[in-house]
Amino acid sequence: MSLLTVGTVAFDTIETPFGKAEKVIGGACTYISWASSYFTNNIHLVSIVGDDFPQTELDKLKSRGVNLDGLKIVQGGKSFFWAGRYHNNMNSRDTLVTELNVLADFDPILPVAARSCKYIMLGNLTPSIQSAVLDQLDGSQKLITLDTMNFWMDIAMDELKSVLKRIDLLTINDEEARQLSGKHSLVQAAEVIHEMGPKYLIIKKGEHGALLFHGDEIFFAPALPLAQVFDPTGAGDTFAGGIMGYLAKTDDTDIENMKRAIIAGSAMASFCVEDFSLNKLQILTEDDITERMKKFKRLMHFELL
Amino acid sequence: MSLLTVGTVAFDTIETPFGKAEKVIGGACTYISWASSYFTNNIHLVSIVGDDFPQTELDKLKSRGVNLDGLKIVQGGKSFFWAGRYHNNMNSRDTLVTELNVLADFDPILPVAARSCKYIMLGNLTPSIQSAVLDQLDGSQKLITLDTMNFWMDIAMDELKSVLKRIDLLTINDEEARQLSGKHSLVQAAEVIHEMGPKYLIIKKGEHGALLFHGDEIFFAPALPLAQVFDPTGAGDTFAGGIMGYLAKTDDTDIENMKRAIIAGSAMASFCVEDFSLNKLQILTEDDITERMKKFKRLMHFELL
Repeated sequence: MSLLTVGTVAFDTIETPFGKAEKVIGGACTYISWASSYFTNNIHLVSIVGDDFPQTELDKLKSRGVNLDGLKIVQGGKSFFWAGRYHNNMNSRDTLVTELNVLADFDPILPVAARSCKYIMLGNLTPSIQSAVLDQLDGSQKLITLDTMNFWMDIAMDELKSVLKRIDLLTINDEEARQLSGKHSLVQAAEVIHEMGPKYLIIKKGEHGALLFHGDEIFFAPALPLAQVFDPTGAGDTFAGGIMGYLAKTDDTDIENMKRAIIAGSAMASFCVEDFSLNKLQILTEDDITERMKKFKRLMHFELL
Repeated sequence: MSLLTVGTVAFDTIETPFGKAEKVIGGACTYISWASSYFTNNIHLVSIVGDDFPQTELDKLKSRGVNLDGLKIVQGGKSFFWAGRYHNNMNSRDTLVTELNVLADFDPILPVAARSCKYIMLGNLTPSIQSAVLDQLDGSQKLITLDTMNFWMDIAMDELKSVLKRIDLLTINDEEARQLSGKHSLVQAAEVIHEMGPKYLIIKKGEHGALLFHGDEIFFAPALPLAQVFDPTGAGDTFAGGIMGYLAKTDDTDIENMKRAIIAGSAMASFCVEDFSLNKLQILTEDDITERMKKFKRLMHFELL
């Protein structure tokens, strides 16, 4: 099935305790597209970059089955740039630089072929832009997923609540779920958020895994314990990309398949953090991913007597 | 199989955002004994209290199959007392009062029958006292488990390392594992700690669950997401008690059974936090526990295609 992914394509400069990566490829849409490309080669990407973005990287995406008709390249413009520094525990980071550049004028226009995509992944963006994407869809969608962050809850809560009514799956982290719902218990938070619209909710807890809520059902997926986390940048987007790629491939949004999708997303995220930028995500094989998903099964499996 | 549990039997005063419980029953050994009593009725408790400790509570323990021959009651003495206040997020707390009282002179003497117990649970105590308990065992043990905390790493690291050489399973939280090993990655921390002695390591992460490490194997058990956590006091001890009770009952320390034991411990801990003190732990049925363990299975279960 076809997957539409909308979000940033960008440059990142990243400092971690293990080193520094200067102006490497980043952006939510980039991570999402790469992660999902291991499951489906019917992907439409809608984003905006300047003419500083390397053609070789665009060619790589194309070769993975990513249709770039919806990528606007602004001649003379500069791509979105983010710089951040991770603390020693790798769980928190400081933003050093945010240059919106061409993203400031991002007004996503969906190519006709993208409007009928069955699976939609809205990366973290202004809620009104996410809404504008939904306005262009043809209504035939099977699952619409939205990622957002505390920043939009601080400055655009009404717009965010408005777009939440129109989606099926929301992915946010635990602190964001608490802020959005006003509830500390994630079980109570999920109840409040379900009422806002999304019938599926995934709460991301970084190194502590992720929780899927759907009605009264809860599924827990741990993060894979790793000997070394090299760079967490893009892990959340890679997680979402793995989930959406898996769902687009299997075309089944029942809860049991959603659980497998989350394991697929967790597996992709575990690769992402093993190196800077897309370095690891660009060299995987299907076997790597199958093996990694089995590792999750072993990590979580027990039999009751 | 027989289980020996050594640790504190005490009073707690607890303040949470939901209320205050004054001078209620607490202590590691109390929680461990109650939790394990749902799996085995062949338990020896070794501890010390003052004559202020209510006989009715001791009678309740006896009725659960807990042998109190090793409980020293100091006439005219006062029982160990701890008071603490939880922050709004329930994940952190301040200690308000610690009165050692009779615990200051605790010199555990094991009754003869306790020396041949097959499963040993050393609750959090001075490492030298934990060592003194091991000195009295007859060598026929099947699994020796030790709980400790950062406080002993700060002031008695050598004694702690010495007793670690003599045990099979260590239970500590994630920050303690990092402090003990000097490694941030829990995978690396586990490698270092295995070298110190314990072939099994359980790293507790509170609301984020627990990890079991054994050789190259890792098993993850989540905490049950609850609509309300009422009082986390004793949850770690209850977790350990559930594990040791389950192991004593099944008499099988293979990794697959250890996984079930951790689920049993997680189930018991999930009950513990639902009310103050032992209130919930004293009124459970076998069906409650079986149902709760099945809930963990549903929380974690998925099938790969």
